[in-house]
Amino acid sequence: MPEAVGGADTAARLEAWRRRIDEVLETALADHPAAERRLGEAMRHAVLLGGKRMRPLLVYAAGTAFGADESALDAPAAAIELIHAYSLVHDDLPAMDDDALRRGQPTVHVAFDEATAILAGDALQSLAFATLADAACGDSARVAMLRELASAAGAHGMCGGQALDLAATGRSASSDIDALERLHALKTGALIRAAVRMGAIAADATDDDRVRLDAYADALGLAFQIRDDLLDVEGESATLGKTAGKDAAQDKATFPALIGIDASRARLAGLGAAMDASLAPFGARAAELATLGSLAIHRSH
Amino acid sequence: MPEAVGGADTAARLEAWRRRIDEVLETALADHPAAERRLGEAMRHAVLLGGKRMRPLLVYAAGTAFGADESALDAPAAAIELIHAYSLVHDDLPAMDDDALRRGQPTVHVAFDEATAILAGDALQSLAFATLADAACGDSARVAMLRELASAAGAHGMCGGQALDLAATGRSASSDIDALERLHALKTGALIRAAVRMGAIAADATDDDRVRLDAYADALGLAFQIRDDLLDVEGESATLGKTAGKDAAQDKATFPALIGIDASRARLAGLGAAMDASLAPFGARAAELATLGSLAIHRSH
Repeated sequence: MPEAVGGADTAARLEAWRRRIDEVLETALADHPAAERRLGEAMRHAVLLGGKRMRPLLVYAAGTAFGADESALDAPAAAIELIHAYSLVHDDLPAMDDDALRRGQPTVHVAFDEATAILAGDALQSLAFATLADAACGDSARVAMLRELASAAGAHGMCGGQALDLAATGRSASSDIDALERLHALKTGALIRAAVRMGAIAADATDDDRVRLDAYADALGLAFQIRDDLLDVEGESATLGKTAGKDAAQDKATFPALIGIDASRARLAGLGAAMDASLAPFGARAAELATLGSLAIHRSH
Repeated sequence: MPEAVGGADTAARLEAWRRRIDEVLETALADHPAAERRLGEAMRHAVLLGGKRMRPLLVYAAGTAFGADESALDAPAAAIELIHAYSLVHDDLPAMDDDALRRGQPTVHVAFDEATAILAGDALQSLAFATLADAACGDSARVAMLRELASAAGAHGMCGGQALDLAATGRSASSDIDALERLHALKTGALIRAAVRMGAIAADATDDDRVRLDAYADALGLAFQIRDDLLDVEGESATLGKTAGKDAAQDKATFPALIGIDASRARLAGLGAAMDASLAPFGARAAELATLGSLAIHRSH
């Protein structure tokens, strides 16, 4: 973990949450009747073969920072990872990004088939919402989480961002930086914001604290994407676990393409400072949130 | 409406609900920012160009039979139609049923493009669950509806049935009637059961009443599918609004293929009697449910 902030306790806590969410997801995906075995296997392939689990970790970090029990965070953490996983399955389809490799593994439509990949993505989205219905908290918090996640996943969030991305592919010349930031605020940012918000809901955090968390999440979401763009330019497929150089090949607008590599790195540093400023009033209890922010900026894959 | 039971009042009530749900759906789909205009238009194309609205009508009919306000039924009625509509968009995709015609209109991937159809379906599913979060009832009922709908839509319901259907395509010879009924219980039946259950939740119906409603819904779901199979054999594309004769062309197992046309018709009549028996204790307040059951059996498209 290069340049990660936080001490050994923080690292241990993040690692424990990483194991915890894998168990929660394993349980959520364990139960599939034999007749639809192939569908269940495709869903497991999409979710259980790795991933950084950044969104679930954000749910745990935001929730526990304000006093929520980890058990109340399991369902929203799993739900948001299931939404993220379904979106990757559909993004990788031939009609979308047409990608054969994800996390160093064949994508779902390659390992299974296209119809199964479409269905597995659909069923993962349903499972995300089913999971929220049984969150270990009161009905009022469950409904608030549902509202947050459904809104972040849909046409005004992730799906809307993906639609903007499709429209922009092959048209990097006509993009400007505002349009690109708006695209990412929807495509990546909406779910990241929903992650910290669901943590805050489980913890019943104050409105003031939620405003700061939103600012942190918005900076994190954009930083994550700028780092992604830089990795696509600088990285190697083996380290990334996906195909490097795809953005340029698809003529996609990226931060390095629009403002250059140096300015992109400077922007990333500025977003890191913005995250620190948002979290400063929370002191040590925000150590895990700070570390996750730092990892997003410094990650190598 | 050939052989529909119920009088003029019942017909008027069903027609009023049909107009009501169209307005609710129009409102749910009205609000889309310009940047994702194409996505919003594809979602509207999928939902607003017609359809029998059977599932929303079942929500209204089941809910009002046990005393729920229509206003408390708008959200679950819209949510279940949005789930149904998304499933049709994805089912019609080239990798699935590859259908160019739906309700007499070009399917979404034909009218727009494949990527937009995938995303529009995804966003419609999110919108369904977002809609439930704001249902005009208490949080406890909202959560109960969420649990019902998410479970019915997913791998243990509609998506599971669709996976079974894919596996069965081209293998009609290896199918038996039990497997076919199980397929339809998931693919069509789960959502129909969820429709009456969400009505019952909004009305806070008793457990005994819910058991009867389940029996009615299960008979209706199967009857709907047998009628569908018969229409595919007997019907014309112009009346159906979709391509007739597709089942045989795809070598799909159907009731007429497995047990013959006469036995299929007899089974349909038996399911009609089962519906009547389930509804009998409810008397006149189940008139709309009875009419919807009769329409499913006698419909010509």
